[in-house]
Amino acid sequence: MMKMIIPSNQRSLEIDLSENLLKTNEQLARENRSLLDRHGIFAVDILGSVGSGKTTLVQQLVLKLKSRRRIASIAGDLTTTIDADRIRSAGADVVQINTGGECHLDANIVGQALGKMDLAALDILLIENVGNLICPAEFPVGAHRRMVVVSTSEGPYMVVKHPYIFMDAGVLAVNKKDLAGIMEVDIEKLKQDALAVKPGMKVVFTNGRTGEGVDDLIAALELPEA
Amino acid sequence: MMKMIIPSNQRSLEIDLSENLLKTNEQLARENRSLLDRHGIFAVDILGSVGSGKTTLVQQLVLKLKSRRRIASIAGDLTTTIDADRIRSAGADVVQINTGGECHLDANIVGQALGKMDLAALDILLIENVGNLICPAEFPVGAHRRMVVVSTSEGPYMVVKHPYIFMDAGVLAVNKKDLAGIMEVDIEKLKQDALAVKPGMKVVFTNGRTGEGVDDLIAALELPEA
Repeated sequence: MMKMIIPSNQRSLEIDLSENLLKTNEQLARENRSLLDRHGIFAVDILGSVGSGKTTLVQQLVLKLKSRRRIASIAGDLTTTIDADRIRSAGADVVQINTGGECHLDANIVGQALGKMDLAALDILLIENVGNLICPAEFPVGAHRRMVVVSTSEGPYMVVKHPYIFMDAGVLAVNKKDLAGIMEVDIEKLKQDALAVKPGMKVVFTNGRTGEGVDDLIAALELPEA
Repeated sequence: MMKMIIPSNQRSLEIDLSENLLKTNEQLARENRSLLDRHGIFAVDILGSVGSGKTTLVQQLVLKLKSRRRIASIAGDLTTTIDADRIRSAGADVVQINTGGECHLDANIVGQALGKMDLAALDILLIENVGNLICPAEFPVGAHRRMVVVSTSEGPYMVVKHPYIFMDAGVLAVNKKDLAGIMEVDIEKLKQDALAVKPGMKVVFTNGRTGEGVDDLIAALELPEA
């Protein structure tokens, strides 16, 4: 008794509607990409749960890169401006997008943000998505690279429980590596879990607070030469 | 430049569709509640990110309650059976729901699960929602109580960044309280953040690994007398 698995195909109308929505999003993502390419801007879509350390890593990337690259950020969040304020303090221009209840950024809203930015004055755009490892999976925003941040403090199951988000990601940052011991999390196991879902993924171990591993992260992102 | 806030009202068609979906869900949630009430079952909807400790707390609740109450669980997850296996090991029957890419349980899928359970043999139902603190907010499943689990390891912003999830929640478990020091998280501040969003919310501090605070959690849930 009580051991069945219920499939999730119960709402076919909803699925049809959502397929249209996804197709529209993909078209808008291609338009964003074209716009970015015309301006020679390399964009990274950064994903991870709230508390994984996305904003701290964006701050570290800004600090390391800002002397030699023109860098800006888009920060997605339900209602607060905490992330944008932190990134701005590191020295990058930031567009804050408050999504209200929406659980992910999409190509439409990122396109609106691009329309208000001075793209001619930019080399690199770091797009910090809403803190959620499920919903953004299906919504490419037009970035050249997708990077996922998972923290050791989130326990051992973050990768195996979010397979979809890794399938389209090129880089995984396993963050807060200094807490792996106390959290009893095996960072090599997290790496193997990611490689099982996405062979060839670049996995780096970071500590956003100290900046450890940020040079490895920059290398893994394969930013174009200045 | 680049400091505007973009509102999220750009997709009115989608919003209309989603209003219908929410109304249907609310109707189905009322039906679930009626079904539960007819059988004298008290149900708790348990929310929190992956890694917050939902499953560990469910295990502790099962261990504490199973000698005097008939208890079962519904475990929602994208693709794995990790949670169901862990809860079963604590001694409760479990219905596993794999949602695929869906980011939350809804009243329809919970109703399907109820239809396959032996409700006459049950007093308490613990519904562990998908690991996500955004999407489940708008989808009541018919439970009598909504409980949110936030871990100190998730950092200081979990409450202020997820206001919607707390508005309909009666209980907050601040879990992994033993890690508050190393995470530099002030658990009293988390409590005040929650009370600011939802005055009267019952906030308890727990350590799921050791069972500390689980009796407080049981009291806060205000389960009906046996």
